[in-house]
Amino acid sequence: MSKKQCKELNLRAAAKFFKKRNNFAILTHSSPDGDTLGAAYALYYGLKEMGKTAEVLCPDIIPSKYSYFAVTTDHIKSDDLTVVAVDVADNKLFGALDAEFGGRVELCIDHHVSNVRYADNLLLDSKASAACEIIYELLKKLKVNINDVTAKALYTGIATDTGCFKYSNVTAKTHLIASELIKYDINAAEINRIMFDTKSKRLLQLERMVLDTAEYHFDDKCILLCVTAAMQEKTGCSGPDLEGIAVISRSVEGVLAGITVKQTGDREFKISLRTFEPLDGAAICGSLGGGGHKAAAGVTLEGTLEEVKAKILAAVGEGMEKANVWSSADK
Amino acid sequence: MSKKQCKELNLRAAAKFFKKRNNFAILTHSSPDGDTLGAAYALYYGLKEMGKTAEVLCPDIIPSKYSYFAVTTDHIKSDDLTVVAVDVADNKLFGALDAEFGGRVELCIDHHVSNVRYADNLLLDSKASAACEIIYELLKKLKVNINDVTAKALYTGIATDTGCFKYSNVTAKTHLIASELIKYDINAAEINRIMFDTKSKRLLQLERMVLDTAEYHFDDKCILLCVTAAMQEKTGCSGPDLEGIAVISRSVEGVLAGITVKQTGDREFKISLRTFEPLDGAAICGSLGGGGHKAAAGVTLEGTLEEVKAKILAAVGEGMEKANVWSSADK
Repeated sequence: MSKKQCKELNLRAAAKFFKKRNNFAILTHSSPDGDTLGAAYALYYGLKEMGKTAEVLCPDIIPSKYSYFAVTTDHIKSDDLTVVAVDVADNKLFGALDAEFGGRVELCIDHHVSNVRYADNLLLDSKASAACEIIYELLKKLKVNINDVTAKALYTGIATDTGCFKYSNVTAKTHLIASELIKYDINAAEINRIMFDTKSKRLLQLERMVLDTAEYHFDDKCILLCVTAAMQEKTGCSGPDLEGIAVISRSVEGVLAGITVKQTGDREFKISLRTFEPLDGAAICGSLGGGGHKAAAGVTLEGTLEEVKAKILAAVGEGMEKANVWSSADK
Repeated sequence: MSKKQCKELNLRAAAKFFKKRNNFAILTHSSPDGDTLGAAYALYYGLKEMGKTAEVLCPDIIPSKYSYFAVTTDHIKSDDLTVVAVDVADNKLFGALDAEFGGRVELCIDHHVSNVRYADNLLLDSKASAACEIIYELLKKLKVNINDVTAKALYTGIATDTGCFKYSNVTAKTHLIASELIKYDINAAEINRIMFDTKSKRLLQLERMVLDTAEYHFDDKCILLCVTAAMQEKTGCSGPDLEGIAVISRSVEGVLAGITVKQTGDREFKISLRTFEPLDGAAICGSLGGGGHKAAAGVTLEGTLEEVKAKILAAVGEGMEKANVWSSADK
């Protein structure tokens, strides 16, 4: 797809956009999270309140934990369909829907500063903690009635994108909107419980096993955790279950590098590296052929578990020496 | 100590109370948490701004993680000392300070509905998520300048008592106050990292041991975890380290009652009970002589570990039957 001219709209112009049109397809990004779903459904419910027709299109299956607001929407048959996208920074993130819809998004509503401007129009607020913050303001601007399920969707997006108001993306406005949303009958505590505090028994069992593997290196500035194929098999934990394990490695006091080694094949291991300043996880994983962000990076390595551990530890040690937080000469 | 007449004050009367007096000792409860400390220090800084003298008295050592606001305060020598207490529902919670101060608290500021009214005057708001909410409103009423460190103390109390805005005690007002507090230079994300995402090595080791004790009861609607004296000794984990263990018990999918049994003496165990609707943890612990909030309650029981486990399990089972979420008849 060639880059088109992308016009930035303000809230007022975006509100006008919705008033003037009648039939909407609302796209989310693939591997949908609370914010893209919350934003899509809040917009969906809002448009319905305005007497418009709308449907939500998600490239992947919507996890059942969002079922308290993410219902199946009717398919719209219309020659006059307006395609909008929420929380989708790049049309690549439309996954299987990119071919059909990626080139005809008339409005994208997003909070990612990295938005690649694939849509005809863009309502972007990179200071918003979540796309749901922007949708809340849009619905207010449209003077649309916000009902309980809309409030649930909006709250879910804001809570999930901020780690329940924990991260640095939270602003005074984030809390102000939350204070409005919890006046509705949303049972925020129950939403938070589902989103943040619900672990399966099998995951708890896996965590116990993983903690047994904890190794400390480089004067305890590095922790290494392993998730072997045997552990995954014994507990029945698979892909999505394992996402939270890397979080453990970054939570230990004094640790600057948290390594999680996850077995993905007979001789294949996926490394997740979480680092704190001044370490650069992307550079460390990059030196082994991987990549990522400064604080969260990864690489896939081949070999035996011991070989793979030695490789990533050597790279982390080198990164620590470069950053002057540890020296092999002190040993 | 015999029960005295306890007069309930409103915010205006409490403000007047502070205006009329000059030298204050501010008491926290034992095993200090973020809310009792945040409230005590916010009040301390506020009184200093008013030109009063004040000191904070804590029955136990203040954990170093609170050092960004909890400084050592000068001892006040005065014949005209006014003793106030914050977040202390019962004078028993003054620990070693009860003998000297328990009988002479002129004002208690609290949010526990279970407050036993030991003080001469009581400013109670049981709808407040944290004592720090009340202190915030008091400082506003007193028109005291809130500086960055005061804002940090207040934010810490509200964040810790709400599980970072996660629990059902959060109200619209809670978020409104948070939206005001994060306008100060408080680095809320760093506070939250210290409070919620930082574990010591020894605590990680203890968690592994505790996970080994996991027992499921009542059709998996209840999980029971144990922290024995031997585990505490082996890992070097003590009182404050153990606060987070109860959180594990409430995070397992489908669990309505999370029990943590913590050994505090040869034949003494402190039970933490975390419950979800429709269970009432305060009522369950109350039936054994304890108390607390609906979702987070506790009781100290004597006996062997097995005896204590049987007692709390029986009470939880009864609570489940009352709430119609489980029936012994189904067995």
